[in-house]
Amino acid sequence: MTDPATRTADRIDFLLSLRATRSFTGDPVPDAALRDILEVARRSGSAMNRQPWRLIVIQDRAVLDRLAAVNPYAGHLASAPLAIALVMDGDMDTEETWDEGRVSERIMLAAAAHGLGSCIGWFVEDGHDDAAKALLGVPAERTLRTAISIGYPAPETKTARPKRGRKSLAEIASLGRYDGPSPA
Amino acid sequence: MTDPATRTADRIDFLLSLRATRSFTGDPVPDAALRDILEVARRSGSAMNRQPWRLIVIQDRAVLDRLAAVNPYAGHLASAPLAIALVMDGDMDTEETWDEGRVSERIMLAAAAHGLGSCIGWFVEDGHDDAAKALLGVPAERTLRTAISIGYPAPETKTARPKRGRKSLAEIASLGRYDGPSPA
Repeated sequence: MTDPATRTADRIDFLLSLRATRSFTGDPVPDAALRDILEVARRSGSAMNRQPWRLIVIQDRAVLDRLAAVNPYAGHLASAPLAIALVMDGDMDTEETWDEGRVSERIMLAAAAHGLGSCIGWFVEDGHDDAAKALLGVPAERTLRTAISIGYPAPETKTARPKRGRKSLAEIASLGRYDGPSPA
Repeated sequence: MTDPATRTADRIDFLLSLRATRSFTGDPVPDAALRDILEVARRSGSAMNRQPWRLIVIQDRAVLDRLAAVNPYAGHLASAPLAIALVMDGDMDTEETWDEGRVSERIMLAAAAHGLGSCIGWFVEDGHDDAAKALLGVPAERTLRTAISIGYPAPETKTARPKRGRKSLAEIASLGRYDGPSPA
């Protein structure tokens, strides 16, 4: 590896460059990449180190297509060669939801480290969670509301950016107090 | 930068190496590091790109000490030179909590890219949130339950590991279905 300053800059660039990918090539996710993604997920921090999750790796085309059909917000699974469904223990407390966000971000970053795109699919409303749970054999007492599609970005999406941009630093940060000056 | 395979390996190592730091040296957080941390937070993805957060950067020793005294789970703020409080819009829906976890993970990773340790402090129970909001001038309708302490790790904590380890891959992952075989 190069010098520490270069490494720091690369790691920050890596964090800054994460984008959602909603369309994928047909190429499979390499086994080595999947192993790294699962290991990064496994080592995720969680409240009280509860690790309140179980990850289901889905590579069956028919299952991915059926999940994609459950909810328009999971439609991107239809072009993904792989998805990871997050099954949470089901305590439904704040910490569990918070930890679900943490592990999801890490899964997306680990995929990006391998040049893979990813997108979060949601099964939150209108019985979508029950439909997704039935497809994956998830017990009723568990929570399933997230499946992350993973694959190589289709060429046309490689430069896709969010439709709306991000808020400015002045809009989202302040020094000292809620109504304090901007750090910008 | 080095070749792509080396870069991928470094980024995965980076993700795997994140640890909570609960004790800090007295050294301040450099301005350049703080700027990167805030920029990484600013670019975080969120449900529907709502960006439902406001970050308060706290460097005042007295305020940090008072926050640390609110809750034992925020006690590590007492040795931190800086903390970032996450003020959420206050919709209190699943997506907002989930997004809070995502941006928290990114803040901790951006700090780690600069060699800085971090730890999540909680203000969830027993009116701790109201006490923390009063200290930071946060409006009642907003949600404040997280402050992340950031600083250089004190020497004795540099090799600190979680008291309990992580679950094995077989315990947290399966192929195809909830009761499917382990990917290990």
